[in-house]
Amino acid sequence: MEALIACDIGGTQIRVATFNAASGEIIQQKRIPTQAPGEKAVDRLLGLIAELWPADGHVRAIGAAAPGFVNPESGVIFFSPNIPGWDGMPLRATIEDRFSVPVFVGNDANLAALGEWRFGAGRGFHHVLYLTISTGIGGGVVINDRLLQGARGLAAEVGHITVEPNGPLCGCGKRGHLEAVASGTGIANYVAEKLAAGATSPLLKGSHPSAREISAAASQGDLLAIEAIHRAGTYIGHALADFLHMLNPSIVILGGGVSHSGELLFAPIRAAVEERVISTEYTRDLQIVPAQLGDESGLMGALALAKMDDHI
Amino acid sequence: MEALIACDIGGTQIRVATFNAASGEIIQQKRIPTQAPGEKAVDRLLGLIAELWPADGHVRAIGAAAPGFVNPESGVIFFSPNIPGWDGMPLRATIEDRFSVPVFVGNDANLAALGEWRFGAGRGFHHVLYLTISTGIGGGVVINDRLLQGARGLAAEVGHITVEPNGPLCGCGKRGHLEAVASGTGIANYVAEKLAAGATSPLLKGSHPSAREISAAASQGDLLAIEAIHRAGTYIGHALADFLHMLNPSIVILGGGVSHSGELLFAPIRAAVEERVISTEYTRDLQIVPAQLGDESGLMGALALAKMDDHI
Repeated sequence: MEALIACDIGGTQIRVATFNAASGEIIQQKRIPTQAPGEKAVDRLLGLIAELWPADGHVRAIGAAAPGFVNPESGVIFFSPNIPGWDGMPLRATIEDRFSVPVFVGNDANLAALGEWRFGAGRGFHHVLYLTISTGIGGGVVINDRLLQGARGLAAEVGHITVEPNGPLCGCGKRGHLEAVASGTGIANYVAEKLAAGATSPLLKGSHPSAREISAAASQGDLLAIEAIHRAGTYIGHALADFLHMLNPSIVILGGGVSHSGELLFAPIRAAVEERVISTEYTRDLQIVPAQLGDESGLMGALALAKMDDHI
Repeated sequence: MEALIACDIGGTQIRVATFNAASGEIIQQKRIPTQAPGEKAVDRLLGLIAELWPADGHVRAIGAAAPGFVNPESGVIFFSPNIPGWDGMPLRATIEDRFSVPVFVGNDANLAALGEWRFGAGRGFHHVLYLTISTGIGGGVVINDRLLQGARGLAAEVGHITVEPNGPLCGCGKRGHLEAVASGTGIANYVAEKLAAGATSPLLKGSHPSAREISAAASQGDLLAIEAIHRAGTYIGHALADFLHMLNPSIVILGGGVSHSGELLFAPIRAAVEERVISTEYTRDLQIVPAQLGDESGLMGALALAKMDDHI
């Protein structure tokens, strides 16, 4: 049997899974923490791949989703805020040197988009825009069935589009980005500000409720929480209008924890998109839907990458 | 000899040229007004193609650049603000029916990008962002040597990205778009507002100087004019930062009349881009340069489209 190996490398855990290359069925998978005392993360990754290596030994390719900026051609991670010591890590070469099979590496959010396109909500669509809205906002774009990577693999940084010039500071250090106002962090910061300014909420406890708590309160009718989610949805819709004008996708897929707020988030998104697009031609037949792969999206994207004959 | 025919269809004039398909040399070209009493614009176009048809009769393909929204697959123009009566015009089928050769149709600004990539400032680059800044702002994107068109041919509407929410009205009817603040129209409106508010200028005459007059005054040191150009450049730079984060091009090409202001425009553009990008990785090796084809860009883009073996 020929196998494919997919790796989803995060700041807190590494997941590796083996798949039957022909059928796509999963054979085996395992998660371990990314960090452990006295060990390098990259050695933990290599060890986990070795541990899951199929007994009959035939692996066609390995796909790996990594956080940060990844050059998809060289397979070098050149900026990795979530994994200390990985700036400049030649991930592709390191895995290839050890296992002597073709290795393909991509940014995790980009590959999540590829996963949704190949196995999730985007199946059958050729022009896909995917956003993952959680602590931060990332995403990926598929154009004509190909992943948009750009000249150096830095494309589709969808969280860092400006929606509110002079707005709040983003995690990246700039102001007013979508991520700063509409991520879980942005939503939590907004509620904390409102509470500090005297707003009251029957359901939110403490001065800094988390995005998850705000989402739960919103689903139970808490007005402040609902307003915070609504506001994030409006900003996401404004950003989507810009993205529609630039990319003209046929489907927009929204993943990440914040997207679980359902219609409380999706209704203002759709309204803001309709308000902002320059022509209804952009929204005719456009679907704006939740992601289907959840936590599997990075892993399935790495599998999709390993599977594709034509990668870049 | 085998020929290619390129058509550049504008609101005021139609240009058709024949080229030697092998050498790329121009054989013949002619311009006529788009409108004439008692004639349909499409019949004028067909007539001009027939007039320039090579004597030995062998034409491999026809490429046509048209204003408005064009579906590149069907070749139907579904919204054409600049040519009355062209909404829904099946341009590709109409030309093919008459001349029985393959016809390829695209949006004029998109094709100008293709022209710059194939024959102009973008030669040798694989990831190109092109903006044309004149009365309005349009553009096009080449990714991995392919034109970005999107699901319905509506991609790369670069003028309609929001840079100033609640800013001035755009020609499209929405607020705060790049086109509203940084096009020739936007620059002229800004200066008119300043003059109405009491600003003075030794070189600008009247209450509504044109963008061309403002550009000329700026080049002679007029402070109000310089500030107006600088402000447009800053907005363009802000939009470019968003585009870099989305597309990660290796070259940005700026065409159109406003781009002729040179460093008065390019210096604030570069400064604003540097200020806004989330990582210098986006601007390392990035070129931001003037277009090279000028008024030829649409025609050369139509030629590039007719020339390409793999169109969409």
